[in-house]
Amino acid sequence: MEKIVITTSGTLSEIFVGKPWEVAAEMIPERGVAIITDENVYNIYGNRFPLFPVLKIVPGEESKRLKVIENLAEQLLDLEIDRSGFILAVGGGVVCDVAGFLASVYMRGIRCGLVSSSLLSQVDASTGGKNAVNLGEIKNVIGNFRQPEFVICDTAMLQTLPEQEYLSGLAELIKTGIIGDLSIFEIIEQNVTAINNRDSILLSDLVARSVRFKAKVVSKDEKENNLRRILNFGHTFGHAIEMHKSMKHGFAVAQGMLFATDFSLQKGFISSGVRERIINLLQRFKLLEEQYIPVNQVEQHIMHDKKRTGTDIHFIFIEGIGKPLIRTVPVSEVMDFYRQIKTGK
Amino acid sequence: MEKIVITTSGTLSEIFVGKPWEVAAEMIPERGVAIITDENVYNIYGNRFPLFPVLKIVPGEESKRLKVIENLAEQLLDLEIDRSGFILAVGGGVVCDVAGFLASVYMRGIRCGLVSSSLLSQVDASTGGKNAVNLGEIKNVIGNFRQPEFVICDTAMLQTLPEQEYLSGLAELIKTGIIGDLSIFEIIEQNVTAINNRDSILLSDLVARSVRFKAKVVSKDEKENNLRRILNFGHTFGHAIEMHKSMKHGFAVAQGMLFATDFSLQKGFISSGVRERIINLLQRFKLLEEQYIPVNQVEQHIMHDKKRTGTDIHFIFIEGIGKPLIRTVPVSEVMDFYRQIKTGK
Repeated sequence: MEKIVITTSGTLSEIFVGKPWEVAAEMIPERGVAIITDENVYNIYGNRFPLFPVLKIVPGEESKRLKVIENLAEQLLDLEIDRSGFILAVGGGVVCDVAGFLASVYMRGIRCGLVSSSLLSQVDASTGGKNAVNLGEIKNVIGNFRQPEFVICDTAMLQTLPEQEYLSGLAELIKTGIIGDLSIFEIIEQNVTAINNRDSILLSDLVARSVRFKAKVVSKDEKENNLRRILNFGHTFGHAIEMHKSMKHGFAVAQGMLFATDFSLQKGFISSGVRERIINLLQRFKLLEEQYIPVNQVEQHIMHDKKRTGTDIHFIFIEGIGKPLIRTVPVSEVMDFYRQIKTGK
Repeated sequence: MEKIVITTSGTLSEIFVGKPWEVAAEMIPERGVAIITDENVYNIYGNRFPLFPVLKIVPGEESKRLKVIENLAEQLLDLEIDRSGFILAVGGGVVCDVAGFLASVYMRGIRCGLVSSSLLSQVDASTGGKNAVNLGEIKNVIGNFRQPEFVICDTAMLQTLPEQEYLSGLAELIKTGIIGDLSIFEIIEQNVTAINNRDSILLSDLVARSVRFKAKVVSKDEKENNLRRILNFGHTFGHAIEMHKSMKHGFAVAQGMLFATDFSLQKGFISSGVRERIINLLQRFKLLEEQYIPVNQVEQHIMHDKKRTGTDIHFIFIEGIGKPLIRTVPVSEVMDFYRQIKTGK
């Protein structure tokens, strides 16, 4: 079991990797708790939840809406949860995002802790305190930064994940390898079978490495003014594809990483050998699948991207595996390159 | 002109009292600005706004809704306001609350500054970084704490306020006198005519005193864990009355102050002379008017009050004018006293 601590502007957030999720019961208050989960997670784990009221949301991205936040807040009021209350989220990225945002704004902020049940949320969403809901087709427009008191990442929970969810999380794990910790990339390369078998010990090691890396980045730059931007590698195109194709996040990010890798090659930042190695690994887990979105729709998405400032965008390139590079690039240049590789023009 | 600074968890918020509001134009970026206001304020001051897109909301409490936040965020997206954007609010408490909350969650937080156009917002809402919207009949359920970069309080703008709005703000000013700065109370007592004439110089002095007091409190306790609670004097009953009777905030708070003063007298914290002096001042500005809400409805409101924890509530009493007293009281005791004075039982 490993404990990783994130310290940001006076708050302390503890992330436990390799603990059985049921210990959450010992980390929450004796009263005033509401549990937020989705129907899928509830069906598998609900019978072992601590004995508190459970608020269920519909699984999937469509629950990331202000309307859902409003509805949950009404239920908290009905439960007479006050400012001393506590929200325990049990679920994947959507549940953690929704519950985290709700906790940050209900009564101007109540306590919260997360049990992170998907690989995607263990390696990404649940660490770092980003909470948000979508607006129309644009992801994460409404949200904030706020660290939960604790996050529990129990890799045994990953056994019950549907295959596509699992692979989706793997894409973010590979991303962390590409932008930060070469050892993650190498361990995945060398253990394809064990990873496909969801070996709990191996996964705990990988999740811990990923969380450790992310914790370091977030502790230095919680509000994404600079360094934290590297975590968005593959996300500029990823988000555009995700919303248009209703694709799972990791698959969309894999596409985005392919694009960012190609762009890095075209800029001369990496060799074709590095590109090859990245594409190979993504392909071994069937994460790449040709996706075409009309250029003008991609452009519209990028213009609404939070990473944009004015007519430029902070684009994350790489100089090698484990070596990210932040560059300000005109949106027009990104679009030109997209047009070039997609239409050959 | 006076500048008062609030420092909280690393952020700095500057409040200017006595500056002409038009100087806001010099304090905002050259691009990426959206102005939020309401239709009334726009009709009076709109022709002198800086030349940026203006988003108008319907005047009044009904605009404090998540639906309005969502709608404004969509407009910001359409305007291509990105993370480097800036929201300038021009208006009273509702506009400042809505714009402040929007700025705190749009793209996970963008910059914002306020021109506070009503007496109520100058002495209360715009200082202190509390943002919120209502949920159903319960006030300020969804919100957060976040200081704007600047607040401009131009008392010349108070000339155009409807009488009831002006008096409503005066109630909060009297509250600040009662819980904090005896001099505010005395100046109001001694200058009833000048206050009725909205003497700009006198008002600037009073607003500055009030902001100075509030800034001191908020700098010590931004998140209302302790000291800041005193600012809620009169608000437990105030909020209950406000939502049920659609009464203006200050009038409801005046009623709440009457109740809290009576309760303080009953507890033996103050003499009947002190009570007399407070009631007299409130009556001179016609702030008291008999209001009866069924006991069970009051109880329901108090149970949803953010000041409640469990079955107790932090109730703000006084020991004299300028001397607040925070006490934890069972909700049942508060209700008993309410029943007693309202029904004589």
